[in-house]
Amino acid sequence: MKTIGVVDTTFARFNMGSAVVDEIKQHVSARIKRVTVPGIKDLPVASKKLIEEEDCDLVIALGMPGSKDIDKVCAHEASTGLIQAQLMTNRHIIEVFVHENEAGSDKELAYLMEKRSREHALNAVKLLFKPEELVKQAGTGQRQGFEDVGSIGM
Amino acid sequence: MKTIGVVDTTFARFNMGSAVVDEIKQHVSARIKRVTVPGIKDLPVASKKLIEEEDCDLVIALGMPGSKDIDKVCAHEASTGLIQAQLMTNRHIIEVFVHENEAGSDKELAYLMEKRSREHALNAVKLLFKPEELVKQAGTGQRQGFEDVGSIGM
Amino acid sequence: MKTIGVVDTTFARFNMGSAVVDEIKQHVSARIKRVTVPGIKDLPVASKKLIEEEDCDLVIALGMPGSKDIDKVCAHEASTGLIQAQLMTNRHIIEVFVHENEAGSDKELAYLMEKRSREHALNAVKLLFKPEELVKQAGTGQRQGFEDVGSIGM
Amino acid sequence: MKTIGVVDTTFARFNMGSAVVDEIKQHVSARIKRVTVPGIKDLPVASKKLIEEEDCDLVIALGMPGSKDIDKVCAHEASTGLIQAQLMTNRHIIEVFVHENEAGSDKELAYLMEKRSREHALNAVKLLFKPEELVKQAGTGQRQGFEDVGSIGM
Amino acid sequence: MKTIGVVDTTFARFNMGSAVVDEIKQHVSARIKRVTVPGIKDLPVASKKLIEEEDCDLVIALGMPGSKDIDKVCAHEASTGLIQAQLMTNRHIIEVFVHENEAGSDKELAYLMEKRSREHALNAVKLLFKPEELVKQAGTGQRQGFEDVGSIGM
Repeated sequence: MKTIGVVDTTFARFNMGSAVVDEIKQHVSARIKRVTVPGIKDLPVASKKLIEEEDCDLVIALGMPGSKDIDKVCAHEASTGLIQAQLMTNRHIIEVFVHENEAGSDKELAYLMEKRSREHALNAVKLLFKPEELVKQAGTGQRQGFEDVGSIGM
Repeated sequence: MKTIGVVDTTFARFNMGSAVVDEIKQHVSARIKRVTVPGIKDLPVASKKLIEEEDCDLVIALGMPGSKDIDKVCAHEASTGLIQAQLMTNRHIIEVFVHENEAGSDKELAYLMEKRSREHALNAVKLLFKPEELVKQAGTGQRQGFEDVGSIGM
Repeated sequence: MKTIGVVDTTFARFNMGSAVVDEIKQHVSARIKRVTVPGIKDLPVASKKLIEEEDCDLVIALGMPGSKDIDKVCAHEASTGLIQAQLMTNRHIIEVFVHENEAGSDKELAYLMEKRSREHALNAVKLLFKPEELVKQAGTGQRQGFEDVGSIGM
Repeated sequence: MKTIGVVDTTFARFNMGSAVVDEIKQHVSARIKRVTVPGIKDLPVASKKLIEEEDCDLVIALGMPGSKDIDKVCAHEASTGLIQAQLMTNRHIIEVFVHENEAGSDKELAYLMEKRSREHALNAVKLLFKPEELVKQAGTGQRQGFEDVGSIGM
Repeated sequence: MKTIGVVDTTFARFNMGSAVVDEIKQHVSARIKRVTVPGIKDLPVASKKLIEEEDCDLVIALGMPGSKDIDKVCAHEASTGLIQAQLMTNRHIIEVFVHENEAGSDKELAYLMEKRSREHALNAVKLLFKPEELVKQAGTGQRQGFEDVGSIGM
């Protein structure tokens, strides 16, 4: 049985981790390991520990960077660390970040955080269980949380 | 018994390390190793040495980046290094940075530096001793040093 | 027989992976391993897995960064990771990125994505099968997707 | 006996390395290994070689980034490499950079380069020989090259 | 006998690699390994392969970043990778980049590319064969491609 790690933050304003766990359970039978850390900069090592100490085959790392300049820098640092953690373990870590200023209101923000989290949970499921489905979607303009934009031709 | 590392700087204008040590002692019984380095760029290797040479289970790295552009770059470099140090050791290093221009006066700055240091000391305690409490706080908009902003719903 | 890895994304709006596979087949006889990931930040670990788990001698990593500021940051993170993956494996990973705003219309964008993908496929073939041809082209102002700009003299 | 590495550049306009060597000799008895490289981007590997091939216990890396935008980027790259070199060796590398535009005249610049170099040489001495003195200075607003700014209270 | 690696790109508009090879041959007797890659982001792994697979004692990596913003980002990524490659191998890689917009005309650009390449070839020779000559030049304001700016005093 595959094991999927889920890590989110206490900084975020919506429980992204629960949305992901719920979505995964609707689609596949997998062992799930969930942890929560204070902020997005704590995600890289938490993800790596889930892979190396809890035998996760893939991790979903969830966060909500704030809207200030310094928050953008933090998000960049966290992303860099998440990529590095993947390279050190040869395991995918799906980063799901929703920037606080991507939405115009709290309601829209919560909607976006839930939708993107669930859609990326499906990407994680495909990567682990049916990677050939992703090849079929190559170049089709998929977007998570927003409407897909589709392919372009010549 | 768990060992917690605490590292701060001579550059900062408030003794963040002492605040953290005091806070930890009020909550748990743990061995504490404290060192001080000149500036924030010295924090990554000092933290890694605390983990690998002093057997710390977790480190709290404290700093006060200045308000100039170059200080922001230094903070970014230090943060990148702190994340890298965590990935190399599979241990959490809680970064506690208070930017000099986050506060309007010296008094406010000192207050913020103490408050954020103490609140992150509690995060460190939770990560080490009761990680399930952090899962309960997932997505609740926790802020360290400022008022929490809370959850949002749809 | 050499093995070439090809990895592209579901985010892109043109099937760059198929163009590359088609181009390679027209020029050399090589085993091809193709995978697709959600976005460009998933390319580094996917490329490294192709090298280390599927014995690829070289990988072509294809993506279409969006036109927003945040997309530029993502592209930078992905590129940094792709370089790191190469350094960890001593294998070339040819990065082929077409930024969505490099073209004025969807039609032009699709044209550019196909052309650059095919021209970099040829670079990959040269790197693997006839590296001395690249030495002959040193300093000749080659461009992929656009017209070459040529050498300059004194 | 401890060994201290000193590395500076031919790009800088003041002999920072000699100032550091002189200062160290006035305070402690230590073996000193000195090398010079062309520019600041050559400092990381030179520092790591001093640690791993010349058994240095600590290295002082000295440079003078120019005042153009590209020079700032170079300084950032060098700093990132210096932090990485420390993490790979578990040894401190004290970075001493004086940006060419920190001073208003050549005379002021030379003064600042000498003063900061010497003050950081003392930090290096403390890190190696009496680290407890740095703990006593935690949070006291030390500055190298300029006047210290002191502590703040509530 | 020492081995020097030389790697340049097909993107550049002047054959920097040939200038370097010519310059080295005028000064020392050394084995030279030359390769060419498509662009500057391919330089880090090519340099590391020259060191680890072709036993180069030092590598000179040559490139001409374009004048657009995206080109500056590419140059930053390449530089970061070149520093990382050095840290992984404990060998110097002399980076010689000439930004396309450093010169006002094609003629000036070609002149600058040749001059900087040749002057850095001499730096490489000194690093490998007579490092004490670089120590004598510490803090003397050396510039490659442009006039040296000299030392400053108090």
